Amino acid sequence: WFLCGCSGKHKGTRDYSPKQMAIRERVFTAIINCFKRHGAEVIDTPVFELKETLTGKYGEDSKLIYDLKDQGGELLSLRYDLTVPFARYLAMNKITNIKRYHIAKVYRRDNPAMTRGRYREFYQCDFDIAGQFDPMIPDAECLKIVHEILSDLQLGDFLIKVNDRRILDGMFAVCGVPDSKFRTICSSVDKLDKVPWEEVKNEMVGEKGLSPEAADRIGEYVQLHGGLDLIEQLLQDPKLSQNKLAKEGLGDMKLLFEYLTLFGITGKISFDLSLARGLDYYTGVIYEAVLLQQQNDHVEDPVSVGSVAGGGRYDGLVGMFDPKGRKVPCVGVSIGIERIFSILEQRVEASEEKIRTTETQVLVASAQKKLLEERLKLISELWDAGIKAEILYKKNPKLLNQLQYCEETGIPLVAIVGEQELKDGVVKLRDVATREEVNIRRENLIEEIRMRTSQL
Amino acid sequence: WFLCGCSGKHKGTRDYSPKQMAIRERVFTAIINCFKRHGAEVIDTPVFELKETLTGKYGEDSKLIYDLKDQGGELLSLRYDLTVPFARYLAMNKITNIKRYHIAKVYRRDNPAMTRGRYREFYQCDFDIAGQFDPMIPDAECLKIVHEILSDLQLGDFLIKVNDRRILDGMFAVCGVPDSKFRTICSSVDKLDKVPWEEVKNEMVGEKGLSPEAADRIGEYVQLHGGLDLIEQLLQDPKLSQNKLAKEGLGDMKLLFEYLTLFGITGKISFDLSLARGLDYYTGVIYEAVLLQQQNDHVEDPVSVGSVAGGGRYDGLVGMFDPKGRKVPCVGVSIGIERIFSILEQRVEASEEKIRTTETQVLVASAQKKLLEERLKLISELWDAGIKAEILYKKNPKLLNQLQYCEETGIPLVAIVGEQELKDGVVKLRDVATREEVNIRRENLIEEIRMRTSQL
Repeated sequence: WFLCGCSGKHKGTRDYSPKQMAIRERVFTAIINCFKRHGAEVIDTPVFELKETLTGKYGEDSKLIYDLKDQGGELLSLRYDLTVPFARYLAMNKITNIKRYHIAKVYRRDNPAMTRGRYREFYQCDFDIAGQFDPMIPDAECLKIVHEILSDLQLGDFLIKVNDRRILDGMFAVCGVPDSKFRTICSSVDKLDKVPWEEVKNEMVGEKGLSPEAADRIGEYVQLHGGLDLIEQLLQDPKLSQNKLAKEGLGDMKLLFEYLTLFGITGKISFDLSLARGLDYYTGVIYEAVLLQQQNDHVEDPVSVGSVAGGGRYDGLVGMFDPKGRKVPCVGVSIGIERIFSILEQRVEASEEKIRTTETQVLVASAQKKLLEERLKLISELWDAGIKAEILYKKNPKLLNQLQYCEETGIPLVAIVGEQELKDGVVKLRDVATREEVNIRRENLIEEIRMRTSQL
Repeated sequence: WFLCGCSGKHKGTRDYSPKQMAIRERVFTAIINCFKRHGAEVIDTPVFELKETLTGKYGEDSKLIYDLKDQGGELLSLRYDLTVPFARYLAMNKITNIKRYHIAKVYRRDNPAMTRGRYREFYQCDFDIAGQFDPMIPDAECLKIVHEILSDLQLGDFLIKVNDRRILDGMFAVCGVPDSKFRTICSSVDKLDKVPWEEVKNEMVGEKGLSPEAADRIGEYVQLHGGLDLIEQLLQDPKLSQNKLAKEGLGDMKLLFEYLTLFGITGKISFDLSLARGLDYYTGVIYEAVLLQQQNDHVEDPVSVGSVAGGGRYDGLVGMFDPKGRKVPCVGVSIGIERIFSILEQRVEASEEKIRTTETQVLVASAQKKLLEERLKLISELWDAGIKAEILYKKNPKLLNQLQYCEETGIPLVAIVGEQELKDGVVKLRDVATREEVNIRRENLIEEIRMRTSQL
């Protein structure tokens, strides 16, 4: 039996080649450095959770959860995000206070759109702060983190939209949406970044039974976006200012913007009443970062190419896993790096930049036949000294083939052993780029390689 | 609804706490450094494979594979090891030549023995060399890698047992085992590291229908272990030397030991005729590394505490995934790091060594109330300069609490802002260990923090 060459992989997943992994490592390094700069610890959780752990956390998206087959024992599902496992972890271990990051794959039975960086298996990079703290300080730090990471990765211009579930709920209330319809109307609003208002309104009125007047009132609010000025304006809004939830949310939003001003990042932050986010568990501030245009686009107006980070406050989730319902307030952000990978991969392809996929410093080569034993002895010395070294796995490789291997893989140095060099107690060290060769005494070779490759 | 606190996780899996992650990172770093030293690229593959990809590769162990529920679309299973996905990757992408490592979790529905480091979800760290090369050079490098990693991690004494599937098969043939019983008798031999010979013999004769005479002949061979001397002796063995497979295997084993002598590592290598290894796909040399005693044991004779690495040559596996059956010879090694984690965790517990779980260099603190804004401004400057910094998320934290936080988490420096310092344009920098405080001009602070923490 055998597989057809075209279908060895589940659609919507992908292997990472060495070249893709090299790009991926760059992105991970930038993100992890940022998380560590902000003092985060790191945790890890299993890839599957008990099925019941995931039930009722994701609203309409629950149908996208992958279940494991019942092979006896507990029913299991693959994790859908890293937030619910984090909340489960806090409750199980009675942790009331932690700042952690977690980078791992999550699973969604979605329709893959691989060209746009959407897969069924994909990485999330999450940073969360759990604990009872003074308002909006951790929330502001999460936004600072998004700002730092997106600046660091040089992905071009970006915008971080901010809103608050309490402002949304208050807005729904003053527009005349019945309490029971808050969630479903909220998920209609969530579509505004993809479809025009008219379509969203039709869904609200036609499918969800909202009155056209209520929908029109919502329509006016969700056009609004701005900064501190808009917050002040809405705090004076005759209807919204009468709603307790909206007032609380607007007060916190004002505080958030004051902190963001101290961080010097309000230039890329927009308070946007159309931002809703689909997940059920958010209770306060929510945010989403979008890239405004790609490097190689030549568009006049900056256009959003999609979300690359999102998050918010979820003060009720941990309590759902605690036998006594004890709450642990949390706020966090998730960096969606698949789209970032796609952009950087495209950029590398376009630039024809050559990416090294190994870190090898030196190839141990021979000039004549019958020197395998000498090559093995030398490379063993180099490995034991911590030098990154390779040989070709041939008894008698041609020197030309050995040099070509260095050109192809970017190895900067060749240590050549030959009959004469062995007699003289030296090794010929060749610089691949300049083709210069110089004899180095065997006892000085390690030092010389270290010196030459530390300059690179 | 809520979960009982005792069962939020699937048995046989575990969360990693920040402290465990810190230990884990040390181990990964040592292993990855070694793989990179040997010039390996890195790849990644999805956590699930098509079910048919895994079918027929693991012999009797196939029953331990986790399947996903059929929710429409292809049937999927969680990967059981990293070797089969690697072979599938090579065939799918028509790669005939690669040296790569892969570190990822694999899944087995085994009976967990968590105290001994056995889990249903666990990491493997695999290094493999694929390609048509001269005999035993890549094989020798794999053993060098195991030797380097186990030496580096300072896990105490270890032994690497080596054998060859062809020697085993030749031995079975000359002992009178029928061809059809090779695999099943091989898996009986595989149990010799856990149960005594008498029991293994009973299984061969009673359950598997081997003649007692054949079993006794096997019993004599499998007692043998040694080095080059034993290889020479078996090459002269009147029966084995007549068997083509055995002769090939012994010839290669001799070559392998010559290369290992050049690497200077034969002291920890034992050619052991009782080593069998269960997996179906091995075709040549096989090996397994065992730790001989733990640091804190006071046992006279070194005893094996179980396998921490294993691998071998599998020249037929890639061909199984190629439509035309084109073979790519492979040899590799898998480091089983869960057991290594367990040992190191126990050692850390015993030594009461304090492990830092963050890398924070400085806490930005305030001496008086109403200085939150000043703290936020200062920490923002530090973050932007790449300094790892934290604040407490309180408007008016007490200085004592801020200092205590540093003691608990191992932060070495505190940058204190106060009314007077702000007026003077300085920040008070406190060394947590010595309690020394000194005023630093604001414009020199970043340089001073860098200097002080680079010495640590």
